Amino acid sequence: MIKIIEKIDELRKILKEYRRNNQTIGFVPTMGYLHEGHASLIKRSSSENEITIVSIFVNPIQFGPNEDLDKYPRDLERDKKVAFENGADIIFHPKVNEMYPEKLYTFVNVENLDKELCGAKREGHFKGVATVVTKLFNIVNPDKAYFGKKDAQQLAIIKKMVKDMNFDIEIIGCDIIREKDGLAKSSRNSYLKPKERKAATILKKTLDKIKEMLDNKETDVKKIINLAIKNIEKEPLAKIDYVEIVDLYTLEKVNKIETDVLVAMAVYIGKTRLIDNFDYKFN
Amino acid sequence: MIKIIEKIDELRKILKEYRRNNQTIGFVPTMGYLHEGHASLIKRSSSENEITIVSIFVNPIQFGPNEDLDKYPRDLERDKKVAFENGADIIFHPKVNEMYPEKLYTFVNVENLDKELCGAKREGHFKGVATVVTKLFNIVNPDKAYFGKKDAQQLAIIKKMVKDMNFDIEIIGCDIIREKDGLAKSSRNSYLKPKERKAATILKKTLDKIKEMLDNKETDVKKIINLAIKNIEKEPLAKIDYVEIVDLYTLEKVNKIETDVLVAMAVYIGKTRLIDNFDYKFN
Repeated sequence: MIKIIEKIDELRKILKEYRRNNQTIGFVPTMGYLHEGHASLIKRSSSENEITIVSIFVNPIQFGPNEDLDKYPRDLERDKKVAFENGADIIFHPKVNEMYPEKLYTFVNVENLDKELCGAKREGHFKGVATVVTKLFNIVNPDKAYFGKKDAQQLAIIKKMVKDMNFDIEIIGCDIIREKDGLAKSSRNSYLKPKERKAATILKKTLDKIKEMLDNKETDVKKIINLAIKNIEKEPLAKIDYVEIVDLYTLEKVNKIETDVLVAMAVYIGKTRLIDNFDYKFN
Repeated sequence: MIKIIEKIDELRKILKEYRRNNQTIGFVPTMGYLHEGHASLIKRSSSENEITIVSIFVNPIQFGPNEDLDKYPRDLERDKKVAFENGADIIFHPKVNEMYPEKLYTFVNVENLDKELCGAKREGHFKGVATVVTKLFNIVNPDKAYFGKKDAQQLAIIKKMVKDMNFDIEIIGCDIIREKDGLAKSSRNSYLKPKERKAATILKKTLDKIKEMLDNKETDVKKIINLAIKNIEKEPLAKIDYVEIVDLYTLEKVNKIETDVLVAMAVYIGKTRLIDNFDYKFN
């Protein structure tokens, strides 16, 4: 049976036992409300490690003051089922005051990589992410940790943090899982009303158009972005937050396609902010 | 024989072996030029752990642009001897490009605790300390780590960082070791010319005077500080950087002695900046 653990000390005790038996530990940090994207991470971890830990923690310090912390969707019963069916051994589900028992003074910040994309729009978000992931890594101390490529900037930041801070953990980025009509799976999709759900396909459709341009050797980033913006604006329920093409590794803006790039966007559908992206290898 | 290890991967490999044998690991991070203060940390670690690792790394990112990085004293041969004689098993002595192989983007910062004392004077210093200690903790992953109370602010910051970031490491603060005339042992004492060496006793003498006032129930911090300043100014070679009385835990300035406090000072003797302190329990 899958174990739900709420206390850090209890988790550490169990993990020590696994390590004493030389069992490898895979870790999938999540904010819960698990969908097929998370399921694919858990499945991969469970195929590559003897033990898989899934954390479910809606981390307050990565939400801005006007963001959706309070209404972020939660469903622990369903999460248990999804985690269990995909091979998780333990769900770590701490309360906020277990993770933050006293005023937090210490923060981990990955500078530079948080300047563009979501970082430019969500001030302090990635500082909150890097900080909680550091805490979780120190608690779980896994051999491998799994992150979705949907949060491409988060993945780049975590990879750089692990290198810079000498975490002895292999970071594995897993492909985006999509609905049949192309919409990237996201816990926030549950916010969408039926009309909005239909409109939300505009993200992937636009990414496909950009991909086509890149395949046709278009290298002028301004031209590509303008066309993409026009395409999204055809959808009345959509409001662009950003559409950007950045260097895949430094996440700095590029003007010309002459290196590996990340094509990424954030678009509001009604009040719901959705993100999507793909990376494109230049050669 | 004591082992000198320069490479992170090699150290990790050896440490894994120790851990497989369930040997406890004590860690003493230093910048080298070991004196009796370091020796006492190493001795304590070796008495409390099966294996003791001493790191010797002059960490560039904790030095300001006008500080003494280049002329910081180094003597690996003597350090080996001191470490060995006091029970160290391994010296970890990485080159700068082993610790910082590429541009560092990730920094650990312990906010608030770096506002007063040395933090106010050495901008970015404690961010550099917290960052390198995080890296070293992730590399060595010790059971216990030993720090001197001479660097009282550093000790408070590391303790808070370990709590906030859930490092599974016990931090042990060790008493200041002094010369016969009271001067706190420090690698920087080697900078002092004979006349300066004599003048340097003004720090401890002034701390003793403050201690006497506290024992006599003086609670007016302003009065205490003013007397201390006057006392230091009697020494022509001394130039005060700061004399402060702060809350022992929050490191915030206090006006009245009504809680546990840290009495700390930094004084230039010639061009050499020396620090000293004591903590005083209120009851």
